[in-house]
Amino acid sequence: MVVKVYGPRYASTKRVLVCLAEKGVEFETSPVDLVKGENRNPEYLGLQPFGAVPVIQDGDYTLFESRAILRYYAEKYKSQGTDLLGESIEERGLVEQWLEVEAQNYHPHIYNLTLHILFASALGFPPDEKLIKESEEKLAKVLDIYEERLSRSKYLAGDFFSLADLSHLPFTQYLVEPMKKEYMIRSRKHVSAWWDDISNRPSWKKVSLL
Amino acid sequence: MVVKVYGPRYASTKRVLVCLAEKGVEFETSPVDLVKGENRNPEYLGLQPFGAVPVIQDGDYTLFESRAILRYYAEKYKSQGTDLLGESIEERGLVEQWLEVEAQNYHPHIYNLTLHILFASALGFPPDEKLIKESEEKLAKVLDIYEERLSRSKYLAGDFFSLADLSHLPFTQYLVEPMKKEYMIRSRKHVSAWWDDISNRPSWKKVSLL
Repeated sequence: MVVKVYGPRYASTKRVLVCLAEKGVEFETSPVDLVKGENRNPEYLGLQPFGAVPVIQDGDYTLFESRAILRYYAEKYKSQGTDLLGESIEERGLVEQWLEVEAQNYHPHIYNLTLHILFASALGFPPDEKLIKESEEKLAKVLDIYEERLSRSKYLAGDFFSLADLSHLPFTQYLVEPMKKEYMIRSRKHVSAWWDDISNRPSWKKVSLL
Repeated sequence: MVVKVYGPRYASTKRVLVCLAEKGVEFETSPVDLVKGENRNPEYLGLQPFGAVPVIQDGDYTLFESRAILRYYAEKYKSQGTDLLGESIEERGLVEQWLEVEAQNYHPHIYNLTLHILFASALGFPPDEKLIKESEEKLAKVLDIYEERLSRSKYLAGDFFSLADLSHLPFTQYLVEPMKKEYMIRSRKHVSAWWDDISNRPSWKKVSLL
Protein backbone atom coordinates (compact mmCIF):
# COMPACT_ATOMS: atom_id res chain seq x y z
CA MET A 1 0.00 0.00 0.00
CA VAL A 2 1.47 3.34 -1.09
CA VAL A 3 0.78 6.16 1.38
CA LYS A 4 -0.71 9.29 -0.20
CA VAL A 5 0.61 12.51 1.38
CA TYR A 6 -1.10 15.88 0.74
CA GLY A 7 0.86 19.15 0.54
CA PRO A 8 4.47 17.95 0.07
CA ARG A 9 5.92 21.44 -0.51
CA TYR A 10 5.32 22.58 3.06
CA ALA A 11 7.59 22.18 6.06
CA SER A 12 5.08 20.44 8.31
CA THR A 13 4.45 17.86 5.57
CA LYS A 14 8.18 17.29 5.12
CA ARG A 15 8.22 16.21 8.78
CA VAL A 16 5.98 13.29 7.70
CA LEU A 17 7.93 12.56 4.51
CA VAL A 18 11.28 12.28 6.30
CA CYS A 19 9.68 9.87 8.78
CA LEU A 20 8.35 7.69 5.93
CA ALA A 21 11.83 7.77 4.33
CA GLU A 22 13.46 6.66 7.63
CA LYS A 23 10.97 3.79 7.88
CA GLY A 24 11.34 2.77 4.23
CA VAL A 25 7.62 3.29 3.54
CA GLU A 26 6.68 4.09 -0.08
CA PHE A 27 4.67 7.26 -0.62
CA GLU A 28 3.15 9.38 -3.36
CA THR A 29 2.35 13.07 -3.01
CA SER A 30 -0.63 15.21 -3.93
CA PRO A 31 -0.06 18.98 -4.19
CA VAL A 32 -2.15 21.45 -2.18
CA ASP A 33 -1.56 25.16 -2.88
CA LEU A 34 -2.25 27.14 0.30
CA VAL A 35 -1.71 30.51 -1.42
CA LYS A 36 -4.43 29.62 -3.95
CA GLY A 37 -6.65 28.43 -1.07
CA GLU A 38 -6.88 24.82 -2.26
CA ASN A 39 -6.95 23.83 1.44
CA ARG A 40 -10.37 25.53 1.67
CA ASN A 41 -12.04 23.39 -1.02
CA PRO A 42 -14.91 21.29 0.41
CA GLU A 43 -13.16 18.10 -0.72
CA TYR A 44 -9.99 18.98 1.19
CA LEU A 45 -11.94 20.15 4.26
CA GLY A 46 -13.60 16.73 4.24
CA LEU A 47 -10.14 15.24 4.85
CA GLN A 48 -8.82 17.99 7.18
CA PRO A 49 -11.56 20.15 8.73
CA PHE A 50 -9.10 22.84 9.89
CA GLY A 51 -7.73 23.28 6.35
CA ALA A 52 -4.13 22.57 7.36
CA VAL A 53 -1.45 20.39 5.79
CA PRO A 54 -0.49 17.55 5.96
CA VAL A 55 -3.06 14.79 5.61
CA ILE A 56 -2.25 11.18 4.75
CA GLN A 57 -4.41 8.49 3.22
CA ASP A 58 -3.34 4.90 3.68
CA GLY A 59 -5.96 2.65 2.09
CA ASP A 60 -9.18 3.81 3.75
CA TYR A 61 -7.40 5.27 6.78
CA THR A 62 -7.07 9.07 6.88
CA LEU A 63 -4.97 10.92 9.43
CA PHE A 64 -3.93 14.55 9.94
CA GLU A 65 -1.65 16.55 12.29
CA SER A 66 1.98 15.95 11.38
CA ARG A 67 3.19 14.76 14.79
CA ALA A 68 0.27 12.32 15.10
CA ILE A 69 1.21 10.88 11.71
CA LEU A 70 4.86 10.54 12.82
CA ARG A 71 3.81 8.55 15.87
CA TYR A 72 1.47 6.35 13.81
CA TYR A 73 4.14 5.28 11.31
CA ALA A 74 6.89 5.00 13.94
CA GLU A 75 4.62 2.57 15.81
CA LYS A 76 3.11 0.73 12.82
CA TYR A 77 6.56 -0.05 11.38
CA LYS A 78 8.35 -0.28 14.74
CA SER A 79 10.77 -2.97 13.54
CA GLN A 80 11.24 -1.66 9.99
CA GLY A 81 13.86 0.98 9.13
CA THR A 82 15.13 3.31 11.85
CA ASP A 83 13.56 2.84 15.29
CA LEU A 84 12.33 6.35 16.14
CA LEU A 85 10.62 5.73 19.51
CA GLY A 86 13.34 4.34 21.80
CA GLU A 87 13.60 0.82 23.15
CA SER A 88 11.66 1.07 26.43
CA ILE A 89 8.58 2.88 27.71
CA GLU A 90 10.93 5.21 29.61
CA GLU A 91 12.90 6.05 26.45
CA ARG A 92 9.64 6.64 24.59
CA GLY A 93 8.57 8.97 27.42
CA LEU A 94 11.66 11.10 26.79
CA VAL A 95 11.02 11.03 23.02
CA GLU A 96 7.49 12.29 23.74
CA GLN A 97 8.83 14.94 26.15
CA TRP A 98 11.22 16.42 23.58
CA LEU A 99 8.69 16.08 20.76
CA GLU A 100 6.32 18.17 22.92
CA VAL A 101 9.13 20.66 23.58
CA GLU A 102 9.57 20.97 19.81
CA ALA A 103 5.82 21.51 19.36
CA GLN A 104 5.22 23.83 22.33
CA ASN A 105 8.51 25.70 22.88
CA TYR A 106 10.49 25.62 19.63
CA HIS A 107 7.86 25.62 16.92
CA PRO A 108 5.79 28.74 17.83
CA HIS A 109 8.85 31.00 17.58
CA ILE A 110 10.38 29.45 14.45
CA TYR A 111 6.92 29.47 12.86
CA ASN A 112 6.54 33.22 13.52
CA LEU A 113 9.95 33.81 11.96
CA THR A 114 9.05 31.67 8.93
CA LEU A 115 5.71 33.39 8.43
CA HIS A 116 6.96 36.95 8.79
CA ILE A 117 10.37 36.63 7.08
CA LEU A 118 9.61 34.15 4.29
CA PHE A 119 5.90 34.26 3.55
CA ALA A 120 4.48 37.67 4.54
CA SER A 121 4.84 39.21 1.07
CA ALA A 122 3.38 36.16 -0.73
CA LEU A 123 0.45 36.18 1.70
CA GLY A 124 -0.04 39.94 1.31
CA PHE A 125 0.68 41.35 4.77
CA PRO A 126 3.59 43.44 6.08
CA PRO A 127 6.15 41.55 8.20
CA ASP A 128 5.85 42.40 11.91
CA GLU A 129 9.42 43.48 12.79
CA LYS A 130 8.75 43.59 16.53
CA LEU A 131 7.41 40.02 16.47
CA ILE A 132 10.43 38.90 14.41
CA LYS A 133 12.81 40.36 17.00
CA GLU A 134 10.93 38.87 19.97
CA SER A 135 10.62 35.46 18.28
CA GLU A 136 14.36 35.34 17.59
CA GLU A 137 15.10 36.20 21.23
CA LYS A 138 12.72 33.50 22.48
CA LEU A 139 14.10 30.93 20.05
CA ALA A 140 17.63 31.77 21.23
CA LYS A 141 16.62 30.97 24.82
CA VAL A 142 15.20 27.62 23.73
CA LEU A 143 18.42 26.87 21.84
CA ASP A 144 20.42 27.66 25.01
CA ILE A 145 18.47 24.91 26.78
CA TYR A 146 19.08 22.56 23.82
CA GLU A 147 22.81 23.37 24.03
CA GLU A 148 22.90 22.27 27.66
CA ARG A 149 20.85 19.15 26.94
CA LEU A 150 22.98 18.18 23.91
CA SER A 151 26.16 18.55 26.01
CA ARG A 152 24.89 15.54 27.96
CA SER A 153 23.42 13.33 25.20
CA LYS A 154 24.04 13.02 21.48
CA TYR A 155 20.36 13.54 20.60
CA LEU A 156 17.48 15.23 22.43
CA ALA A 157 15.89 12.13 23.97
CA GLY A 158 19.17 10.30 24.63
CA ASP A 159 21.96 8.71 22.61
CA PHE A 160 19.58 7.62 19.83
CA PHE A 161 18.05 9.52 16.91
CA SER A 162 14.28 9.77 17.36
CA LEU A 163 11.07 11.54 16.31
CA ALA A 164 12.08 14.36 18.68
CA ASP A 165 15.11 15.23 16.54
CA LEU A 166 13.44 14.48 13.21
CA SER A 167 10.56 16.83 13.92
CA HIS A 168 12.98 19.80 14.00
CA LEU A 169 14.37 19.26 10.49
CA PRO A 170 12.09 21.17 8.08
CA PHE A 171 11.67 24.46 9.94
CA THR A 172 15.30 24.53 11.10
CA GLN A 173 16.32 24.16 7.44
CA TYR A 174 14.27 27.31 6.74
CA LEU A 175 16.12 29.07 9.56
CA VAL A 176 19.57 28.05 8.32
CA GLU A 177 19.08 28.67 4.60
CA PRO A 178 16.39 31.03 3.30
CA MET A 179 16.18 32.98 6.59
CA LYS A 180 20.01 33.25 6.76
CA LYS A 181 20.07 32.73 10.54
CA GLU A 182 22.57 29.85 10.55
CA TYR A 183 24.51 31.80 13.22
CA MET A 184 21.81 30.78 15.74
CA ILE A 185 22.91 27.15 15.24
CA ARG A 186 26.65 27.71 14.70
CA SER A 187 27.14 29.86 17.81
CA ARG A 188 26.23 26.84 19.97
CA LYS A 189 28.79 24.02 19.79
CA HIS A 190 26.57 21.05 20.66
CA VAL A 191 23.52 22.33 18.74
CA SER A 192 25.82 22.81 15.73
CA ALA A 193 27.14 19.23 15.88
CA TRP A 194 23.59 17.91 16.34
CA TRP A 195 22.36 19.90 13.34
CA ASP A 196 25.21 18.59 11.16
CA ASP A 197 24.36 15.06 12.24
CA ILE A 198 20.60 15.14 11.68
CA SER A 199 20.59 17.31 8.54
CA ASN A 200 23.07 14.97 6.82
CA ARG A 201 20.89 11.89 7.19
CA PRO A 202 20.11 10.39 3.75
CA SER A 203 16.37 10.58 4.50
CA TRP A 204 16.54 14.35 4.90
CA LYS A 205 18.89 14.83 1.93
CA LYS A 206 16.23 13.12 -0.19
CA VAL A 207 13.13 14.79 1.27
CA SER A 208 14.54 18.33 1.46
CA LEU A 209 14.87 18.30 -2.34
CA LEU A 210 11.18 17.47 -2.96
CA MET B 1 5.97 3.62 44.00
CA VAL B 2 4.02 6.83 44.58
CA VAL B 3 4.35 9.32 41.72
CA LYS B 4 5.37 12.83 42.81
CA VAL B 5 3.64 15.58 40.80
CA TYR B 6 4.84 19.21 40.94
CA GLY B 7 2.45 22.17 40.67
CA PRO B 8 -0.97 20.56 41.36
CA ARG B 9 -2.90 23.88 41.45
CA TYR B 10 -2.42 24.55 37.75
CA ALA B 11 -4.58 23.41 34.86
CA SER B 12 -1.83 21.73 32.86
CA THR B 13 -0.88 19.69 35.93
CA LYS B 14 -4.51 18.68 36.50
CA ARG B 15 -4.34 17.08 33.04
CA VAL B 16 -1.74 14.68 34.50
CA LEU B 17 -3.60 14.15 37.79
CA VAL B 18 -6.86 13.16 36.07
CA CYS B 19 -4.91 10.68 33.95
CA LEU B 20 -3.33 9.14 37.07
CA ALA B 21 -6.79 8.97 38.67
CA GLU B 22 -8.22 7.19 35.59
CA LYS B 23 -5.35 4.67 35.73
CA GLY B 24 -5.62 4.14 39.50
CA VAL B 25 -2.01 5.26 40.07
CA GLU B 26 -1.22 6.70 43.51
CA PHE B 27 0.30 10.16 43.58
CA GLU B 28 1.50 12.84 45.98
CA THR B 29 1.78 16.52 45.08
CA SER B 30 4.43 19.16 45.66
CA PRO B 31 3.34 22.81 45.40
CA VAL B 32 5.08 25.24 43.02
CA ASP B 33 3.96 28.89 43.18
CA LEU B 34 4.40 30.48 39.75
CA VAL B 35 3.38 33.95 40.97
CA LYS B 36 6.18 33.81 43.58
CA GLY B 37 8.57 32.56 40.87
CA GLU B 38 9.29 29.21 42.56
CA ASN B 39 9.53 27.72 39.05
CA ARG B 40 12.68 29.82 38.53
CA ASN B 41 14.61 28.35 41.49
CA PRO B 42 17.77 26.50 40.36
CA GLU B 43 16.46 23.28 41.95
CA TYR B 44 13.22 23.44 39.96
CA LEU B 45 15.02 24.39 36.73
CA GLY B 46 17.14 21.27 37.22
CA LEU B 47 13.93 19.26 36.87
CA GLN B 48 12.26 21.43 34.19
CA PRO B 49 14.70 23.70 32.31
CA PHE B 50 11.89 25.82 30.81
CA GLY B 51 10.44 26.58 34.26
CA ALA B 52 6.98 25.24 33.40
CA VAL B 53 4.61 22.95 35.29
CA PRO B 54 4.06 20.01 35.56
CA VAL B 55 6.98 17.72 36.25
CA ILE B 56 6.69 14.19 37.63
CA GLN B 57 9.19 12.08 39.51
CA ASP B 58 8.61 8.35 39.58
CA GLY B 59 11.52 6.74 41.44
CA ASP B 60 14.57 8.08 39.61
CA TYR B 61 12.63 8.82 36.42
CA THR B 62 11.78 12.50 35.78
CA LEU B 63 9.46 13.64 33.01
CA PHE B 64 7.93 16.99 31.99
CA GLU B 65 5.42 18.29 29.41
CA SER B 66 1.89 17.32 30.43
CA ARG B 67 0.89 15.50 27.24
CA ALA B 68 4.13 13.47 27.24
CA ILE B 69 3.37 12.42 30.83
CA LEU B 70 -0.19 11.43 29.80
CA ARG B 71 1.17 9.17 27.07
CA TYR B 72 3.76 7.65 29.39
CA TYR B 73 1.24 6.59 32.04
CA ALA B 74 -1.41 5.54 29.52
CA GLU B 75 1.19 3.21 27.99
CA LYS B 76 2.91 2.05 31.20
CA TYR B 77 -0.41 1.02 32.77
CA LYS B 78 -2.12 0.07 29.50
CA SER B 79 -4.15 -2.74 31.09
CA GLN B 80 -4.85 -1.01 34.43
CA GLY B 81 -7.81 1.34 34.92
CA THR B 82 -9.37 3.05 31.91
CA ASP B 83 -7.70 2.32 28.56
CA LEU B 84 -6.97 5.80 27.20
CA LEU B 85 -5.16 4.96 23.94
CA GLY B 86 -7.63 2.89 21.89
CA GLU B 87 -7.39 -0.80 21.08
CA SER B 88 -5.49 -0.77 17.77
CA ILE B 89 -2.65 1.24 16.22
CA GLU B 90 -5.29 2.94 14.02
CA GLU B 91 -7.38 3.95 17.04
CA ARG B 92 -4.26 5.25 18.77
CA GLY B 93 -3.49 7.25 15.63
CA LEU B 94 -6.86 9.01 15.98
CA VAL B 95 -6.25 9.58 19.70
CA GLU B 96 -2.93 11.20 18.78
CA GLN B 97 -4.60 13.27 16.03
CA TRP B 98 -7.19 14.76 18.38
CA LEU B 99 -4.67 15.18 21.19
CA GLU B 100 -2.59 17.24 18.73
CA VAL B 101 -5.73 19.20 17.75
CA GLU B 102 -6.25 19.98 21.44
CA ALA B 103 -2.61 21.09 21.77
CA GLN B 104 -2.30 23.02 18.50
CA ASN B 105 -5.81 24.32 17.71
CA TYR B 106 -7.80 24.45 20.97
CA HIS B 107 -5.22 25.20 23.63
CA PRO B 108 -3.60 28.40 22.25
CA HIS B 109 -6.95 30.23 22.21
CA ILE B 110 -8.28 28.95 25.54
CA TYR B 111 -4.86 29.67 27.08
CA ASN B 112 -5.01 33.31 25.88
CA LEU B 113 -8.49 33.64 27.39
CA THR B 114 -7.33 32.11 30.68
CA LEU B 115 -4.26 34.33 30.89
CA HIS B 116 -6.00 37.58 30.04
CA ILE B 117 -9.34 37.04 31.81
CA LEU B 118 -8.28 35.11 34.92
CA PHE B 119 -4.61 35.85 35.59
CA ALA B 120 -3.69 39.26 34.10
CA SER B 121 -4.29 41.21 37.33
CA ALA B 122 -2.44 38.68 39.53
CA LEU B 123 0.48 38.75 37.10
CA GLY B 124 0.43 42.55 36.93
CA PHE B 125 -0.43 43.34 33.31
CA PRO B 126 -3.60 44.80 31.73
CA PRO B 127 -5.85 42.28 29.95
CA ASP B 128 -5.64 42.62 26.15
CA GLU B 129 -9.31 43.06 25.16
CA LYS B 130 -8.60 42.71 21.43
CA LEU B 131 -6.79 39.42 22.00
CA ILE B 132 -9.65 38.20 24.22
CA LYS B 133 -12.17 38.92 21.46
CA GLU B 134 -10.07 37.30 18.73
CA SER B 135 -9.31 34.25 20.89
CA GLU B 136 -13.01 33.71 21.63
CA GLU B 137 -13.82 33.93 17.91
CA LYS B 138 -11.07 31.43 17.03
CA LEU B 139 -12.10 29.07 19.82
CA ALA B 140 -15.72 29.24 18.57
CA LYS B 141 -14.57 28.08 15.11
CA VAL B 142 -12.69 25.15 16.67
CA LEU B 143 -15.80 24.24 18.68
CA ASP B 144 -17.85 24.29 15.45
CA ILE B 145 -15.53 21.60 14.07
CA TYR B 146 -15.83 19.64 17.34
CA GLU B 147 -19.63 19.89 17.05
CA GLU B 148 -19.54 18.28 13.62
CA ARG B 149 -17.08 15.61 14.77
CA LEU B 150 -19.09 14.80 17.92
CA SER B 151 -22.25 14.43 15.83
CA ARG B 152 -20.56 11.37 14.32
CA SER B 153 -18.83 9.80 17.34
CA LYS B 154 -19.43 9.96 21.08
CA TYR B 155 -15.87 11.10 21.84
CA LEU B 156 -13.25 12.88 19.76
CA ALA B 157 -11.21 9.85 18.66
CA GLY B 158 -14.22 7.51 18.29
CA ASP B 159 -16.76 5.85 20.56
CA PHE B 160 -14.28 5.52 23.44
CA PHE B 161 -13.06 8.02 26.03
CA SER B 162 -9.36 8.72 25.51
CA LEU B 163 -6.45 11.04 26.28
CA ALA B 164 -7.81 13.32 23.54
CA ASP B 165 -10.96 14.06 25.56
CA LEU B 166 -9.24 14.02 28.95
CA SER B 167 -6.70 16.64 27.88
CA HIS B 168 -9.52 19.19 27.40
CA LEU B 169 -10.84 18.98 30.97
CA PRO B 170 -8.88 21.51 33.05
CA PHE B 171 -8.90 24.53 30.73
CA THR B 172 -12.51 23.93 29.62
CA GLN B 173 -13.49 23.95 33.29
CA TYR B 174 -11.90 27.43 33.52
CA LEU B 175 -13.96 28.48 30.48
CA VAL B 176 -17.24 27.19 31.91
CA GLU B 177 -16.88 28.39 35.49
CA PRO B 178 -14.57 31.27 36.42
CA MET B 179 -14.61 32.74 32.88
CA LYS B 180 -18.41 32.44 32.70
CA LYS B 181 -18.38 31.39 29.05
CA GLU B 182 -20.44 28.22 29.45
CA TYR B 183 -22.60 29.47 26.54
CA MET B 184 -19.78 28.48 24.19
CA ILE B 185 -20.35 24.85 25.21
CA ARG B 186 -24.15 24.94 25.70
CA SER B 187 -24.88 26.54 22.31
CA ARG B 188 -23.54 23.40 20.61
CA LYS B 189 -25.68 20.31 21.23
CA HIS B 190 -23.06 17.59 20.77
CA VAL B 191 -20.25 19.53 22.45
CA SER B 192 -22.61 20.12 25.37
CA ALA B 193 -23.42 16.40 25.75
CA TRP B 194 -19.71 15.53 25.45
CA TRP B 195 -18.82 18.09 28.13
CA ASP B 196 -21.48 16.72 30.52
CA ASP B 197 -20.14 13.23 29.94
CA ILE B 198 -16.43 13.91 30.45
CA SER B 199 -16.75 16.49 33.24
CA ASN B 200 -18.90 14.11 35.29
CA ARG B 201 -16.32 11.34 35.35
CA PRO B 202 -15.37 10.46 38.97
CA SER B 203 -11.68 11.06 38.15
CA TRP B 204 -12.37 14.68 37.22
CA LYS B 205 -14.79 15.24 40.13
CA LYS B 206 -11.94 14.24 42.43
CA VAL B 207 -9.09 16.10 40.72
CA SER B 208 -10.98 19.35 40.04
CA LEU B 209 -11.34 19.82 43.80
CA LEU B 210 -7.58 19.61 44.49
